[in-house]
Amino acid sequence: MSEKNFYNVDDLLNNPVNFLADSAPGGPVVISSRIRLARNLSEFNFPTAASADESKVITESVLTALERSRALGSEARKFMIEQLDELDREILFERHLVSRELLAGGSYEAVCVSADESLSVMINEEDHLRMQVILPGFQLHQAWQRIDKLDDQLSCELDFAYDPVLGYLTCCPSNLGTGLRVSVMLHLPALTMTRQIKQLERGLGKLGLTVRGMFGEGSENLGNFYQISNQSTLGESETEIIERLSKVIDEVINHEESVRGQLLQHDRNRLLDAVGRSYGLLRHSYILSSKEAFNSLSGLRLGVDMKMFNSVNIHTVNELFTAISPAHLQKKAGRVLDNQERDVFRSEVVRSQLKLNGAL
Amino acid sequence: MSEKNFYNVDDLLNNPVNFLADSAPGGPVVISSRIRLARNLSEFNFPTAASADESKVITESVLTALERSRALGSEARKFMIEQLDELDREILFERHLVSRELLAGGSYEAVCVSADESLSVMINEEDHLRMQVILPGFQLHQAWQRIDKLDDQLSCELDFAYDPVLGYLTCCPSNLGTGLRVSVMLHLPALTMTRQIKQLERGLGKLGLTVRGMFGEGSENLGNFYQISNQSTLGESETEIIERLSKVIDEVINHEESVRGQLLQHDRNRLLDAVGRSYGLLRHSYILSSKEAFNSLSGLRLGVDMKMFNSVNIHTVNELFTAISPAHLQKKAGRVLDNQERDVFRSEVVRSQLKLNGAL
Repeated sequence: MSEKNFYNVDDLLNNPVNFLADSAPGGPVVISSRIRLARNLSEFNFPTAASADESKVITESVLTALERSRALGSEARKFMIEQLDELDREILFERHLVSRELLAGGSYEAVCVSADESLSVMINEEDHLRMQVILPGFQLHQAWQRIDKLDDQLSCELDFAYDPVLGYLTCCPSNLGTGLRVSVMLHLPALTMTRQIKQLERGLGKLGLTVRGMFGEGSENLGNFYQISNQSTLGESETEIIERLSKVIDEVINHEESVRGQLLQHDRNRLLDAVGRSYGLLRHSYILSSKEAFNSLSGLRLGVDMKMFNSVNIHTVNELFTAISPAHLQKKAGRVLDNQERDVFRSEVVRSQLKLNGAL
Repeated sequence: MSEKNFYNVDDLLNNPVNFLADSAPGGPVVISSRIRLARNLSEFNFPTAASADESKVITESVLTALERSRALGSEARKFMIEQLDELDREILFERHLVSRELLAGGSYEAVCVSADESLSVMINEEDHLRMQVILPGFQLHQAWQRIDKLDDQLSCELDFAYDPVLGYLTCCPSNLGTGLRVSVMLHLPALTMTRQIKQLERGLGKLGLTVRGMFGEGSENLGNFYQISNQSTLGESETEIIERLSKVIDEVINHEESVRGQLLQHDRNRLLDAVGRSYGLLRHSYILSSKEAFNSLSGLRLGVDMKMFNSVNIHTVNELFTAISPAHLQKKAGRVLDNQERDVFRSEVVRSQLKLNGAL
């Protein structure tokens, strides 16, 4: 592994988070489309059972394969987790490039990221490889093409554990077969406001789909963002899974949009109140927790999506979503901030950004 | 009783509530100074024991005495409670001219009010007469002079129940002696924010003083307004009671002002946050309950008092305090509003008033 190919996490900060695009296919309800593939190298133990020596070889093999295949592009960035400080690790997490599990690992965990952050490969997470593509908006088919190609390129270099009957072998049986998880991040403020999320969760559960918070498994509903993803990876082809999920997502989008329309027509003040309070809090508070900021930005985004603002646009909202996260905030401040300092600085950033953009 | 001297409650609405003055003696912490005297006519039973016939005669006697003495001025207004509809009764209550007890009575309850609403006399409340003076700001001595004069004028016309040893006789022993209740309404947002009110209540309790909410006995703390008043009416002269209360109020004012200063110096963001959130809510919400409105106006008033605003002044704040009360709000709307309609209209009134006054 040549050191010159390792990068400073700060390089990422010049770009907005890739999946928060100001204009994305599929309208404002869908934030992003994500697909990940779990793969393992046939000649090694799964990460949970691998020795340190094995893990080291695995990391080196995958990094070499990525380099040779140029599958993540010539500007790809590599990060060894153990070389990163706490703040840098959190930056990767907040940008949805690594999982909590990867960060919690012992050693030899790594992640490689394409220049635009749409493609990434985690090494030595639960499986040897976790490939990921995230695209803004509703682009599952495009996402599938991208990750399928990445998978092909890497499989030329690496020997993936594969069983003709079971398919790709994975550490956890829940990923067996395709090793595929398809998830779509949706912004569902109207369904949340009208308390229809539980019902949605039950309905989707029956279809073998799960609903999770913004940061995946175990994360709470923050800012009315929900990830809908497939549960089973066995017995269906990749394109069948994607096709099925796409249809469901279409229905959820229609549902959210129709409830937004109903609110606008029959409960206008409730809608305006939710949006207005969000805006008022962002624009005028001086201490703002991360949770309050996410939830208020969600309200602001709803207002922007519904054309309620002249002075605030989706670009500002997206910039703020990135800026308010604890690690990004501390990077902006240029130093580690304690909780109280963070809440004060967060509100400063939000206020000045809104003011800069001509908000009243 | 000549009918021409009875007035429509709507006449009151042309004037702001008298005790919310834009500029009042004693600085911004003291809202108003109030003194009331309880008196009974010696030849009748107390209201609780009086027959309907007796109550009728009492009302007529007091109204005649008020008319002959001209003690409330030539423009005094008289209201027979039973002739008023629900909304008009609430208007009198919100303007602190009548008590809940007077409104709950059976018949012959009445109130007479001077043109500027600073002087008023309730008839057939718990006692035959409850005279009241309310002045804006910290003016207990002036208030005492006004009500002492009113008492003198009425005692020339009426025979008050008086015992040489006990003093003025009252229905409830807690008012025996002077029949005097002196109370000062204070705005204590800084002491509330720093959780020092309970301690203040305990301290004042030891001095024989009580702390109550905005609307007196049993009312909750609304908008960080507190009424501090004397408990005992026996064993001290009127001026001794007033003198003692004045000294205590001076201390409370100093305490509130010093905590405001401390917050500004050492916890500036917390102060700005409280004020900013209040402003944001008033300016941008579309559904606003009475309680939220009072509490937010309290925050706004604190900001105005501490010179944090260019665009909002105390006049606007005072106007809004009157306008947001349920009955005043419905008078402004020109019709009875249900709870939901009220919250929507309240927020409309607040938003447009703030906008009108150039608030951002």
